[in-house]
Amino acid sequence: MEVTVTQENLSFALSNASRVASSKAGLPILSNILLRTDGSRLLVAATNLEVASSHKIGAKVIKPGSLTVPAKLLSDFLQNLPKGQITLTTNGAKLHIKADTSSSTINGVDDEEFPELPVIDDKKAVSYSIASDDFKQSVAQTVIAASSDSTRPILTGVYWHSFENNLYLAATDGYRLTERRIVDTASDVIAVIPTTTLQEVIRTLRDDTSEVEILFDETQVTFRLAEVEITSRLIDGNFPDYRQLIPATSDSSFTINRSELMRTIKIASLFARESGGGITLTLDTDAAKLTIHSIASEVGENSSEVNVTSTGVSASVSLNSRYLIDALNAVTSNEVNFGFSGKLAPCVLTEAVKDPVYKHIIMPLKS
Amino acid sequence: MEVTVTQENLSFALSNASRVASSKAGLPILSNILLRTDGSRLLVAATNLEVASSHKIGAKVIKPGSLTVPAKLLSDFLQNLPKGQITLTTNGAKLHIKADTSSSTINGVDDEEFPELPVIDDKKAVSYSIASDDFKQSVAQTVIAASSDSTRPILTGVYWHSFENNLYLAATDGYRLTERRIVDTASDVIAVIPTTTLQEVIRTLRDDTSEVEILFDETQVTFRLAEVEITSRLIDGNFPDYRQLIPATSDSSFTINRSELMRTIKIASLFARESGGGITLTLDTDAAKLTIHSIASEVGENSSEVNVTSTGVSASVSLNSRYLIDALNAVTSNEVNFGFSGKLAPCVLTEAVKDPVYKHIIMPLKS
Repeated sequence: MEVTVTQENLSFALSNASRVASSKAGLPILSNILLRTDGSRLLVAATNLEVASSHKIGAKVIKPGSLTVPAKLLSDFLQNLPKGQITLTTNGAKLHIKADTSSSTINGVDDEEFPELPVIDDKKAVSYSIASDDFKQSVAQTVIAASSDSTRPILTGVYWHSFENNLYLAATDGYRLTERRIVDTASDVIAVIPTTTLQEVIRTLRDDTSEVEILFDETQVTFRLAEVEITSRLIDGNFPDYRQLIPATSDSSFTINRSELMRTIKIASLFARESGGGITLTLDTDAAKLTIHSIASEVGENSSEVNVTSTGVSASVSLNSRYLIDALNAVTSNEVNFGFSGKLAPCVLTEAVKDPVYKHIIMPLKS
Repeated sequence: MEVTVTQENLSFALSNASRVASSKAGLPILSNILLRTDGSRLLVAATNLEVASSHKIGAKVIKPGSLTVPAKLLSDFLQNLPKGQITLTTNGAKLHIKADTSSSTINGVDDEEFPELPVIDDKKAVSYSIASDDFKQSVAQTVIAASSDSTRPILTGVYWHSFENNLYLAATDGYRLTERRIVDTASDVIAVIPTTTLQEVIRTLRDDTSEVEILFDETQVTFRLAEVEITSRLIDGNFPDYRQLIPATSDSSFTINRSELMRTIKIASLFARESGGGITLTLDTDAAKLTIHSIASEVGENSSEVNVTSTGVSASVSLNSRYLIDALNAVTSNEVNFGFSGKLAPCVLTEAVKDPVYKHIIMPLKS
């Protein structure tokens, strides 16, 4: 192989691919990057057998060929090179790199030992095209409620599914639940995507990429972002029927400025460390006041009172303050709506708009 | 006690003092902050018995008094309060804090249990006034060579001393040595200040503080930065006579652009991980070229050639690349001078100016 590429293109491809390349997996070859000429382009790919990341970058191909080399070393090396032309030449299992005033040799491994890269058949796949900003926001808003407990793998993913002609994302760890409506759809899809895959797609998304194309088959999903393609297995199993858990109405509700509530909850949470983050919200609908209270017998106690717009009956509920902070970080509006029905029913946080696209459900603490 | 202060002043004082307050020391009271009225000001202080940090902030004192309260909780709490007036009231060992819409109680401990804060007698002390920027740069340039090995405590500090009517800072871990000339002086001083103290002073220095006043007595040093005072014990013992280790002349030397050398060394260091960071510099004074070479039998090898201005004889030397990167980070000029004498003598890196104030010495690797 002999190719010339730019430092900028190769460095970008390597920094993404090297995150996927894994030194933990049992197979040492998985910590390598595959470099392979493909017409007038150079394929730069890595896989950990769950997720594969592949980039095709513009190249001047003098002699076709391929090799795999240690991902981290090559990526760190490229990032320290100055911008400009780089020539890659293979000699057996050695990769020679010539750039500017520097000349290096990296020992590699023949690509025959590298696993086959997964592919989705475009013709058999269900596909969506989603604006990058919508995609990023929807994923960020849902993944926070996904579980990190590997004993129930189905809950460690985000549930992508069509329902009443809309595509929805949902996630839950049993204590909280997030749901985001994303686009209209005529096709049917049911798929649980690992959160690690979604996070990898978001890290890879460049600011100048305006659309994400997503293709599903029975067992895999592919994300196409301009010149990058990320393919991942789906999580096996049935996602719980979460819709029945979302209350249709609430007995008590209030609307409040998001940053004011955030600040008050953060203060209260400092006094809630001993009690596992527990704080109590008390709504007085006659006075249109919300009191937030936390107590730690050792340390002290805190109480704050804020004005709100409220409806329904006066009531109290105890929550984990960390969950409420996560939820407030996930919504984007200035004003938020919080609905609850006594001490035991799930609480619903939404943006204070008509027909909100995002719902964040938190189970109360039993107190 | 009953005082009114602003959130801004108290929060700044607490964030500094809480870094000094220690939860590790055997005495639980040391994780508390001392609050004590002092005329029309509020003293906010903490100590870990090695270093004490004390702040005097403007206050409206309604009723004098004092109390100690958990440093971290109070500091985190203040940082989350909005700007504006805060009222602190004590009731026995309880501190009540009233701010905006929030009202809190923190359980404290009587200040009788709090250790005496150290003081230096101004009249008996040797004192210096140093411009903040000089102080920051000189400390940053020297501390990097201080040892972290607590079995030789004297090397874990920075040696402040007068020599030929100048004040010098020096540090060494036996592998490298830094020396910085800082100001003219007529007084005699010999003191070894713990690096942790110096780092704490730098973290506390506000951008708008133009001068640092430094007072030494036999066993202590005090740094005065506007309204903050940091007092630390000195390290006992005699600092090694390091001057004899600095070569007066070098057989070979070259001048090079600092960022170009840095970039080249960083690339070489990637191939030097196996060999403990060892890289080899080879100067060809006839061709005015420097070659930087590193090799790792498993991984591969790297070689770079850069043009330099050189004097003396052609020669080679092997160095730990991490030390050279640290040294290049410490100098501030665009051009640097590197002098060495064969494979065994210490190498000297300085800024490429006449009579440089900063010298960074690195011992070669035996190869």
